[in-house]
Amino acid sequence: MSILETCALLVERVREEGPLVHHLTNYVTVNDCANVTLAIGGSPIMADAIEEVADIAALASALVLNIGTLNARMIDSMLAAGKRANSKGIPVVLDPVGAGASAFRTSTALRLLAEVKIAAIRGNISEVRSLAGLAAHTKGVDADSADEAFDAGEVAAGLARKQGCVVAVTGARDAISNGSRIVFVDNGVPALSRVSGTGCMCSSLVGSFVGTAPEMLLEGTAAAILCMGIAGELASEKTGASGTGSYRAALMDAVSRMDRETMMRRGRISETEC
Amino acid sequence: MSILETCALLVERVREEGPLVHHLTNYVTVNDCANVTLAIGGSPIMADAIEEVADIAALASALVLNIGTLNARMIDSMLAAGKRANSKGIPVVLDPVGAGASAFRTSTALRLLAEVKIAAIRGNISEVRSLAGLAAHTKGVDADSADEAFDAGEVAAGLARKQGCVVAVTGARDAISNGSRIVFVDNGVPALSRVSGTGCMCSSLVGSFVGTAPEMLLEGTAAAILCMGIAGELASEKTGASGTGSYRAALMDAVSRMDRETMMRRGRISETEC
Amino acid sequence: MSILETCALLVERVREEGPLVHHLTNYVTVNDCANVTLAIGGSPIMADAIEEVADIAALASALVLNIGTLNARMIDSMLAAGKRANSKGIPVVLDPVGAGASAFRTSTALRLLAEVKIAAIRGNISEVRSLAGLAAHTKGVDADSADEAFDAGEVAAGLARKQGCVVAVTGARDAISNGSRIVFVDNGVPALSRVSGTGCMCSSLVGSFVGTAPEMLLEGTAAAILCMGIAGELASEKTGASGTGSYRAALMDAVSRMDRETMMRRGRISETEC
Repeated sequence: MSILETCALLVERVREEGPLVHHLTNYVTVNDCANVTLAIGGSPIMADAIEEVADIAALASALVLNIGTLNARMIDSMLAAGKRANSKGIPVVLDPVGAGASAFRTSTALRLLAEVKIAAIRGNISEVRSLAGLAAHTKGVDADSADEAFDAGEVAAGLARKQGCVVAVTGARDAISNGSRIVFVDNGVPALSRVSGTGCMCSSLVGSFVGTAPEMLLEGTAAAILCMGIAGELASEKTGASGTGSYRAALMDAVSRMDRETMMRRGRISETEC
Repeated sequence: MSILETCALLVERVREEGPLVHHLTNYVTVNDCANVTLAIGGSPIMADAIEEVADIAALASALVLNIGTLNARMIDSMLAAGKRANSKGIPVVLDPVGAGASAFRTSTALRLLAEVKIAAIRGNISEVRSLAGLAAHTKGVDADSADEAFDAGEVAAGLARKQGCVVAVTGARDAISNGSRIVFVDNGVPALSRVSGTGCMCSSLVGSFVGTAPEMLLEGTAAAILCMGIAGELASEKTGASGTGSYRAALMDAVSRMDRETMMRRGRISETEC
Repeated sequence: MSILETCALLVERVREEGPLVHHLTNYVTVNDCANVTLAIGGSPIMADAIEEVADIAALASALVLNIGTLNARMIDSMLAAGKRANSKGIPVVLDPVGAGASAFRTSTALRLLAEVKIAAIRGNISEVRSLAGLAAHTKGVDADSADEAFDAGEVAAGLARKQGCVVAVTGARDAISNGSRIVFVDNGVPALSRVSGTGCMCSSLVGSFVGTAPEMLLEGTAAAILCMGIAGELASEKTGASGTGSYRAALMDAVSRMDRETMMRRGRISETEC
């Protein structure tokens, strides 16, 4: 089965199984994360109190840790939830929002990687380079244009080998690697970066996919990113130059309608050994 | 006057009086709660700091306590706001999001019920069964399908009698009871459950209605739920299979246009003694 | 160059320079603030942890402090971020949401004004009167209709002189003053007040404009408010009586399409000495 066929099938599996995806995430895009999880057929739960995170994580199919608006209380909760998920074999997804923009974000992301077994990381090239200890120019939460010149596949594969997990670098061309293989996704449009939360939403989709298929972390992560890229294109075709408000609603529409046939017809995905 | 006529009239009263609805709510759907309160003609204020919650509660027409993303600091603030609202005779609405999913949520909801006089509770069948001390299968924040087999009217009436307040169980068929009467609402569509926050929004509407008509808690709660059900149908008719992004905008549109005539024409509501 | 020509040119400058706007803001409308910043061509970053706010503020083009859901932890972070921004010459915008509605909000806003050099304040008439020490009737976060009888230009100019900063009072007719000049904006529609967050979004736009042109605080603040007013009109013309969900998406569309030509064609702005 080709990587495209596998990804397309996974969309059906997510809709059938309805994974419960526990999020500890930022308050900026949390609503988008909840809605995109519902849109792909999952069930989101957001809970961050230290009194309950371990209980909730234990019920979940996947755990998403997103450091977009981090604070000390949240870090303790992320560690507790992550450890519980680890003990139950539940995959944990890390979105290192803004790693490199402050020492606090970078060190926290590295601490999460050190203390919790992460199944998949999804970030932009600047964030992922920061985690890999490479020079990065993170300014804010968007990828720096200088960093975009680096080879996303190499960066993803390098961190994947170092951390022993799947790493996805999203950008003009997305690269997803487990250290021995690299999957490239060529879907997506620049309009995606003009709406807040599309990166976070992508990580939530990764949670839904790897929660459904924890035995296929590379394929699940790639399927989530492919899904977002295709949805971005469909929304762009639908709304044209209407503007970012219409685009955002159309993006959610497209995810909520995503199916195997659309993935097969639109997906531009390839893989290579590395 | 029939229950339908009463509910329809209440929509007009809410628009005329513009109740100020103080929310202590979760950060996932808080924006939807603010917008739906504006859409029905109320004025939302969100404030959760212990330094001000009592002051703000004292200004409000109603107080909504929603435990969707609970933490220790929020509990103290909910208790302070709730007690102040009680002392001023301002109705307090409780949305026990995820009660049953963690001991923390269940015990906090019960503590709020013990220490604050609650006017109305709105939850799904799993949440309400948890509060009633009945076996429930809450997994996450959605109702469990096994729990949905129970009679919503009986469950609502049972908790209503136990707590001496109005209890609304929303689901395929909504049931609202004050312990001696049960109102059933048959409006609504499954699409409502594919958008995050429709339950929370429903509780915010309950706040707007009971804040406007505190002398008619059963009718006000029923009117809010009827309003949401009809809006859900209108949005579905408008957007068809477009997807959940379009549906969500159309849902807010429908609430913002809700009026007496639409309620009369579309409402499917009945009541019975119990 | 007329004030209108200056404002229209500034829209182009914002899009060219893409200011990074650091927000410490409320969790109700934070997503709207992020999206409106992207829509006008800026780059939003939300960060409120004491461990990183100074680092992030130092990277930014402007800092927006919005007290919509204040708490003790946030105040410490606002002070730290504000002081760092001051030391780097980065303009700081204050949105005193709900000042007057609680002693906590009023005193915190005044403390921020005392300890941080604020470049521009944007609020409604009730909020601004509260900060000026004038009698106000703030109930919740909306302007009180009794307060709306006061002359917005006079109120803005008075506080501007007292605080040595630009003050914008938004309402039916917006007034922006630096204490010696008053700019009036006559664009805008009542529909703007039926959507949550339009005030906060306006303050985020002020951040984008003054971050781009810190040497033109009065003009930048006016340009932001003009932009919001015109976008509000365009959204109204586009969506008619559809409802507030459609209106909200159309509003974001209009900001994302705003350009020099639209500003020139639609802007109704004038200035006077005071």
